[in-house]
Amino acid sequence: MNRPNPARIDIQKMSGYTPGEQPDPSRPLTKLNTNENPFPPPKAVLDAILSATKQNLRLYPEPSSISVRQAAAKAYNLKPEQVIAGNGSDDLLTMVLRTFVGHKQLVTAPAPTYSLYETLTKIQGGIFKDTPWPDDFSLPIDDLIKSNAQLIFVVRPNAPTGHVVPLADIAKLCENAPGVVVLDEAYVDFAEDNGLSLLNDHDNLIITRTMSKSLGLAGLRVGLGFTNPTLAAEMHKVRDSYNLNRLSQAGAVAALDNLAAYKPGIAAIRNERSRVTIELQNRGFTVMDSQANFILATVPKDTLNGEGWLNALRNKGYLIRYFGSDPRLADKIRITIGTKDEMDGFLQAVDELL
Amino acid sequence: MNRPNPARIDIQKMSGYTPGEQPDPSRPLTKLNTNENPFPPPKAVLDAILSATKQNLRLYPEPSSISVRQAAAKAYNLKPEQVIAGNGSDDLLTMVLRTFVGHKQLVTAPAPTYSLYETLTKIQGGIFKDTPWPDDFSLPIDDLIKSNAQLIFVVRPNAPTGHVVPLADIAKLCENAPGVVVLDEAYVDFAEDNGLSLLNDHDNLIITRTMSKSLGLAGLRVGLGFTNPTLAAEMHKVRDSYNLNRLSQAGAVAALDNLAAYKPGIAAIRNERSRVTIELQNRGFTVMDSQANFILATVPKDTLNGEGWLNALRNKGYLIRYFGSDPRLADKIRITIGTKDEMDGFLQAVDELL
Repeated sequence: MNRPNPARIDIQKMSGYTPGEQPDPSRPLTKLNTNENPFPPPKAVLDAILSATKQNLRLYPEPSSISVRQAAAKAYNLKPEQVIAGNGSDDLLTMVLRTFVGHKQLVTAPAPTYSLYETLTKIQGGIFKDTPWPDDFSLPIDDLIKSNAQLIFVVRPNAPTGHVVPLADIAKLCENAPGVVVLDEAYVDFAEDNGLSLLNDHDNLIITRTMSKSLGLAGLRVGLGFTNPTLAAEMHKVRDSYNLNRLSQAGAVAALDNLAAYKPGIAAIRNERSRVTIELQNRGFTVMDSQANFILATVPKDTLNGEGWLNALRNKGYLIRYFGSDPRLADKIRITIGTKDEMDGFLQAVDELL
Repeated sequence: MNRPNPARIDIQKMSGYTPGEQPDPSRPLTKLNTNENPFPPPKAVLDAILSATKQNLRLYPEPSSISVRQAAAKAYNLKPEQVIAGNGSDDLLTMVLRTFVGHKQLVTAPAPTYSLYETLTKIQGGIFKDTPWPDDFSLPIDDLIKSNAQLIFVVRPNAPTGHVVPLADIAKLCENAPGVVVLDEAYVDFAEDNGLSLLNDHDNLIITRTMSKSLGLAGLRVGLGFTNPTLAAEMHKVRDSYNLNRLSQAGAVAALDNLAAYKPGIAAIRNERSRVTIELQNRGFTVMDSQANFILATVPKDTLNGEGWLNALRNKGYLIRYFGSDPRLADKIRITIGTKDEMDGFLQAVDELL
């Protein structure tokens, strides 16, 4: 470059979000690092995509994904005007930031949390401030409200801990928050309950979902946002006009029309989550109760540290997640729950390393 | 809403971008309104998507679409570090705004132009100012430079006129522009030349392309950006981590690997463009020379006005584009070039209305 770098100073100073590693498909690694579903999507979903591929790919898709929004409204007992579709839930999070956060406005979340919130806030020119989780991991309602943030993110089940806070706490937060509350339910299909019923009473609440976890469609990039029609209409203004392609739309509709087909897989993951939690606890790990499709485990003292476990397990063919940039997570590793066979192999690898 | 609307005032005040109408597929309308390709993509592209559908849709895609960037680098004689992939070229335009335009910074383009530039600038909190095209539609280089805009968009071939300005003018603009120049080459495959060679000498130049027009993949949402590695690296920071899904990536690679298969279709569209231009001129329309896959026609005096033609042609089964919100375009209609049969039918409909 002969000229000075023309990018905004904020952008020059930041690094982008680092997604979890997607290993070369030719390497025989078992992926337990980015919370994908170990089971493929139902045949009906694949058939819908195959059929859409053969139809009019030369034509633009529906601009606002109305067929997806109608299918979601039916599946979740909402109105289509309450639903907005995203190119993954990350796209919805981007829309939320762009719609509700102005120059130098504040954003917060109980932390540690999904690091993309901070990245997106910086890109938007806002200011992100952690609100630390207390030691007992109860929702820090007063601290979140006192932060005076225009936007508050709460992940439930939380990432990367997997724990859930009571829905009544989310309701109390919405009631008293100065701005918008985003309840990120990326993992909620693996949990005991969800926040949809809160939408009726709280017009500053936005719930986000993804098809990347429970619905086995991380490769398709579909997220859904649920809120009231007023907030949805504002978000539609900043949405890219054709943010879902025809194949995502076809697959998403089929997934929503076939939610029952996912139940056995979800049940298997929940069972496996309980088993692996106990097995790791028996081996000296501290594991928080998780309602997600992953668990966060504190490694036993006098063994490897978190990064050591990451590398040693990778050498044994298991890719897990370690959040090296956050000192609060230095002694912890996050493990996605896979199939029984995958988790048997993982536990055997752990045994070999203890 | 019991609370005040929490959206940014800028967003509340604006309306979103209005994309061209996508009619209900059950209505027998010939779409000549959004510059899609009348020919389907080659079989190799569809086969690649069908194959990818059956493989690992449960896993996230490549985060930065490296396979697409490698295929593009090979096809266009660039390095992969010079290429960035978008979920449609609109996604690339969004990245450009977010990377290079700060709060209240200026953006301009010779106008009338693609109205999304103004929408994206407003969303970003920047200020968009038209730089009018002169009567002879030569590039207003001095006016663009004097605007002191941080970002200048030039569409070449231009939308909605279809005309091209000399590449030497683009070079001169880059040399003297205070900030970044985006050369939007959405329609360039239908033109005589393109701006790729300018990338070597101008490190403030970004070229954007789309697969929605010449490559017949509007339904897949793939755009490409070409620039120098420094600007590309900054844009990657604001890019959504998984902005292309697995099927878009597979289709895009196959399209780039099979560019030769598109040549007959592109040649047919160019021939048809010449023919329809002359046929409309013979009927009293004024038509600018177009190097795109559409033409902009000024309707004959003493016939319907632009909106009248839109409605009358729709009643006859032909959907064209009319830009009612811009008074400079009130007497003009834009017609996408379709197949010979489609254009024969269109011309017959025109005859019936004259």
